Amino acid sequence: MPTIKNISLAAVTKLFKVMKLEIEFGKGILRDYEVIAGNGRGAVMILPIMDDYVFFIKEYSAAIDDYCLTFPKGKIDEGEDVLTAANRELQEEIGLKSQQMNHVYTLDLAPGYIDHKTHIVIAQELFASKLQGDEPEELEVCKCKLLEVQSFLATHSNIDSRVFSALYIYSNLKHYVQS
Amino acid sequence: MPTIKNISLAAVTKLFKVMKLEIEFGKGILRDYEVIAGNGRGAVMILPIMDDYVFFIKEYSAAIDDYCLTFPKGKIDEGEDVLTAANRELQEEIGLKSQQMNHVYTLDLAPGYIDHKTHIVIAQELFASKLQGDEPEELEVCKCKLLEVQSFLATHSNIDSRVFSALYIYSNLKHYVQS
Repeated sequence: MPTIKNISLAAVTKLFKVMKLEIEFGKGILRDYEVIAGNGRGAVMILPIMDDYVFFIKEYSAAIDDYCLTFPKGKIDEGEDVLTAANRELQEEIGLKSQQMNHVYTLDLAPGYIDHKTHIVIAQELFASKLQGDEPEELEVCKCKLLEVQSFLATHSNIDSRVFSALYIYSNLKHYVQS
Repeated sequence: MPTIKNISLAAVTKLFKVMKLEIEFGKGILRDYEVIAGNGRGAVMILPIMDDYVFFIKEYSAAIDDYCLTFPKGKIDEGEDVLTAANRELQEEIGLKSQQMNHVYTLDLAPGYIDHKTHIVIAQELFASKLQGDEPEELEVCKCKLLEVQSFLATHSNIDSRVFSALYIYSNLKHYVQS
């Protein structure tokens, strides 16, 4: 296992902390890395399913200055657990609350350079319940038959990569990893 | 469409540039965002397939200070196109070269806060060809039958989220989006 020999702060902003790491591999090989540190709690992403339909949102995404297709998601607030955060985001973003939630996986976004965890939650047994969120504009909610998700995605651009990850986990892994 | 009213540099390091954006939504609503800017060229991730097997690597990932399971991947160098970068990384990381590569999709990692593109390439017709890369240690290469990928993934932790995205695209979308 490589050893971290030195850690220093390369930059800090309101949201991000970039760390510089000096890492020693075998044979005395030293390498410098820069990585984005996590915030500790991570984020939730919810796959809401009702009557064989799945719900997406379209949300303005500042890093690409465009709308992207994604699932309801958001940061976990201080003191919240994963399922509480997921049910809050569901109500804020699509006006639905779930009576059956399963935290099926915790994604590592791109562990080579960013420490960011996204907890994937499957939400079923949904009923209307709206909470006011902090979104600067109303989100567009799209629903799609589960059996038609592939052609639906093929007609969209700017899709959050975690949508594909969550769908793969839902379709293929949930029986192995369900908690 | 929201309008970017102001852009400023919040921090810059050797690898990362954090931008601060002031964005105006309808009804005069102003919001501040911080986003990680892209490097323009992005990265490639290769799904190497031979004789019904798929190849993974295990790589030390500095942001989580642990090994992670991922596909061969890396940054696109200046002057390279996607497929050239993909075939170079394949040879450096697993010692195989491909005679049939398809760039099937371009992933947006987490467009809300990072502008990072990962080009997904399916590589087939592989033969032995090693190039020396800049890895600080030899990578462990794992191969797995395509039909057994799900149980293989279920036995691993620290999986790069783009592995799931790439597998979903390979399994479900490639006929829609293949370029």
